[in-house]
Amino acid sequence: MTGQLAYPDFREKVANCFRRQPFMAHIGARLRRVEPGFCEIELSFRPELGQQDDFLHAGVVATLIDNAAGFAALSLFEADEEVLSVEFKLNLLRPVKGGRIFGRGKVLRNGRRLSICQAEVWESDEAGGEKLCASGMVTLMRMQPSEAQ
Amino acid sequence: MTGQLAYPDFREKVANCFRRQPFMAHIGARLRRVEPGFCEIELSFRPELGQQDDFLHAGVVATLIDNAAGFAALSLFEADEEVLSVEFKLNLLRPVKGGRIFGRGKVLRNGRRLSICQAEVWESDEAGGEKLCASGMVTLMRMQPSEAQ
Amino acid sequence: MTGQLAYPDFREKVANCFRRQPFMAHIGARLRRVEPGFCEIELSFRPELGQQDDFLHAGVVATLIDNAAGFAALSLFEADEEVLSVEFKLNLLRPVKGGRIFGRGKVLRNGRRLSICQAEVWESDEAGGEKLCASGMVTLMRMQPSEAQ
Amino acid sequence: MTGQLAYPDFREKVANCFRRQPFMAHIGARLRRVEPGFCEIELSFRPELGQQDDFLHAGVVATLIDNAAGFAALSLFEADEEVLSVEFKLNLLRPVKGGRIFGRGKVLRNGRRLSICQAEVWESDEAGGEKLCASGMVTLMRMQPSEAQ
Repeated sequence: MTGQLAYPDFREKVANCFRRQPFMAHIGARLRRVEPGFCEIELSFRPELGQQDDFLHAGVVATLIDNAAGFAALSLFEADEEVLSVEFKLNLLRPVKGGRIFGRGKVLRNGRRLSICQAEVWESDEAGGEKLCASGMVTLMRMQPSEAQ
Repeated sequence: MTGQLAYPDFREKVANCFRRQPFMAHIGARLRRVEPGFCEIELSFRPELGQQDDFLHAGVVATLIDNAAGFAALSLFEADEEVLSVEFKLNLLRPVKGGRIFGRGKVLRNGRRLSICQAEVWESDEAGGEKLCASGMVTLMRMQPSEAQ
Repeated sequence: MTGQLAYPDFREKVANCFRRQPFMAHIGARLRRVEPGFCEIELSFRPELGQQDDFLHAGVVATLIDNAAGFAALSLFEADEEVLSVEFKLNLLRPVKGGRIFGRGKVLRNGRRLSICQAEVWESDEAGGEKLCASGMVTLMRMQPSEAQ
Repeated sequence: MTGQLAYPDFREKVANCFRRQPFMAHIGARLRRVEPGFCEIELSFRPELGQQDDFLHAGVVATLIDNAAGFAALSLFEADEEVLSVEFKLNLLRPVKGGRIFGRGKVLRNGRRLSICQAEVWESDEAGGEKLCASGMVTLMRMQPSEAQ
């Protein structure tokens, strides 16, 4: 992780951006933790998020990868900068079968224009044991206010 | 596209698998077309699928990429084989702002164990013009019935 | 492909950049064709480029993917801009066993800061038939002269 | 890392496979360390491996990512199984400018048919400090002897 802190109120900025994403409410995701260059999102399994065998749909896994990385990147940006996903890739290591699910992203390189992040999805069982279910890489762009699309 | 047809009722098999995915109903996606080695999914923009700027969330874009590829792959599998996503990668070329959205997947290589697919997301405006919004690659695995997880 | 032409002497600029890459001579690659938003590189199989089964090493396949995309991107940049690879991903569809090998890249989106390209590696047999051996996506960045690293 | 050890002579098997790759000699790479589910490759910068600004060519970086992952995967396979790269993706975080270069791969998931690995490229300066220059994910397949292509 690179990253000295760019902006004192980064947690508030990230939380505000999270709240402005209707899709987070639609899948029931919660912002759990934000540190400089790190973000954790939590999701509880719901039947409507399933694929044909009642595992968590890979699209929801991808959503956690993308967002955990995106908010990790945003935590290191300047106060008035926004974040835009450029591309991501994930490997699905094990099906997510239920329980509590965590998406965790961290910044590998906080560049002048791009932020490169690693992100993972973990499944937690009732005993608190965790299994790594997906691992990915995400490239994000800093957007200055003048660059709004 | 490789792929002679493996199974006469492939359209019914793909449609059945699509219906068994609760997440498709949760985002409002519809199966539109299935050909041997090809699949098209349609989605109408809804506010609850948005990110912070009211564009389609990248996780939904990824869902279309993964599923269009997955059903394209499934269309060439044997009657009793199922499909499992191994990994995927997508580039987000333009934000999806609304209207009708299409996910299209095609098989590049239908191998003995793996199927490699290309998939795209297109946005259609009212005049029927289309813009390419995302392009990706998906690796999928054939699952024989005995390999159920 | 986006991309009106930015610079009349783009072919000369691309050829010059190709010549300045010692690694191209080290593997014996030749620049074959440059069009606005498109590039083709040719390679003849040599034993020293092989892996353990005498197929073309995946690292050489990746080199063709990266460079065909990079020069396709460069062909649309301004006269004084350079190109830098941000990330790439490739699927290895079939082993490259010999003969004439072609890397082809095209620009999917020529953005203000980033260029997103698709690239493929094809193997040609003596009869002139071609087989698709690898397919990939490459993200590249425009570098203005003031941004030299 | 998953992976109990499958085969007592795994180091010899990996070293043998490395020696059978002519491309490793062609770029001057050396096998440095093999542990169950881990592999490290070393490379000294040479001018012929450069791109247009005399940094290490991204194709060589990709070669290290692919091979470090591939040999990490191979270290956990059965004695008579071989390894084949399915796909990989890497982010280029910083240009590799010289000195000693290390490719390191580790197995994230050693599955029945596929091995999913993470790999990185590090540059070491004269004082022994290291910088992360590239990070990637690699999907590899177990090949039983009967499956030779």
